[in-house]
Amino acid sequence: MTAPARRPGRRPGRSSSRDDILAAARVLFGERGYDKASIRAIAAAAGVDPALVHHFFGAKEELFAAAMEFPVDPETILPLILAGPRAEIGERLVRTFLRFWSDPRLRPQFVGIIRSATTSETGATLLRDFITSQLFARVAAVLEVPGLNLNAAAAQLVGVVMFRYVLEMEPMASASDDELVALLAPTIQRYLDA
Amino acid sequence: MTAPARRPGRRPGRSSSRDDILAAARVLFGERGYDKASIRAIAAAAGVDPALVHHFFGAKEELFAAAMEFPVDPETILPLILAGPRAEIGERLVRTFLRFWSDPRLRPQFVGIIRSATTSETGATLLRDFITSQLFARVAAVLEVPGLNLNAAAAQLVGVVMFRYVLEMEPMASASDDELVALLAPTIQRYLDA
Repeated sequence: MTAPARRPGRRPGRSSSRDDILAAARVLFGERGYDKASIRAIAAAAGVDPALVHHFFGAKEELFAAAMEFPVDPETILPLILAGPRAEIGERLVRTFLRFWSDPRLRPQFVGIIRSATTSETGATLLRDFITSQLFARVAAVLEVPGLNLNAAAAQLVGVVMFRYVLEMEPMASASDDELVALLAPTIQRYLDA
Repeated sequence: MTAPARRPGRRPGRSSSRDDILAAARVLFGERGYDKASIRAIAAAAGVDPALVHHFFGAKEELFAAAMEFPVDPETILPLILAGPRAEIGERLVRTFLRFWSDPRLRPQFVGIIRSATTSETGATLLRDFITSQLFARVAAVLEVPGLNLNAAAAQLVGVVMFRYVLEMEPMASASDDELVALLAPTIQRYLDA
């Protein structure tokens, strides 16, 4: 197979080969999982030579880490979640979490993380790190929540997006964010109040 | 690669080639997921010829369905969950669910379902059917719970076993069943009370 010359979504002056590779990697890791998304296929989708992928990112595992890196800065979101009444933090957390998953630019990356986490040690480590060190754990550190409660809250939210976006299970797949916030916020609030 | 002649766990008079194949399929689907577990590898692990696998089960998809079939009869469990006070049904459901996952003979099969559901359409369909038509949905039908609440409860439990047994995330991986029941039962109870 030869790499096609097309560069999907490429806008001259607003992108770069490096960005194209990352975007293609997110789509392919998301669709196929870590093991089945090859460097060759990612290079083809980005319209570059596989050697350029290696030049920018080294091995597949490093490309994966770069592609799956949390796409928003927790320092920006944390104040949004922590601001406001303590009794409504569950609602703010669920709403913020669902808002990121609703973004079609970010979702393939998140789906890729879930898919890869169940099938490769690299993916599992990444999701563990993501949950332990990112947004969620920082909220917990500020609120002094026990680790097991934090796990239960994260498991509820990861379970929900797995049902909604990976398994596409009804009625959860078609429910509105508002319906889900109403249903899930009290659960998360209870775990964070402990 | 040639199939080795060993038959792990085989006890003469207490097993059969058919059972050996199913046991090997559960282990390999569980470890590798649907796509990467080949009929050849499953036959090798069971100590039989691949032709015998096809003879008993036909195509890989049929073997998968047979291997992943819910290993306990919902009709046996349902009365256990429904018996007793309505206000404690969340606790009984969580405890029963965790007890099945604690059984080392059943766990590979359950892990296989989760792993395959995130990476193949066959696996996703199986998990959707499993949740929609098995134990959980039957409890909901008796209690007249809305579908979205049922999804939320199932998502919480699937998220928990994914953290505990697939990602091996701490402290959830090392927590006792009693700790988890105390933490999760009120969540499930609230969803089923709606």
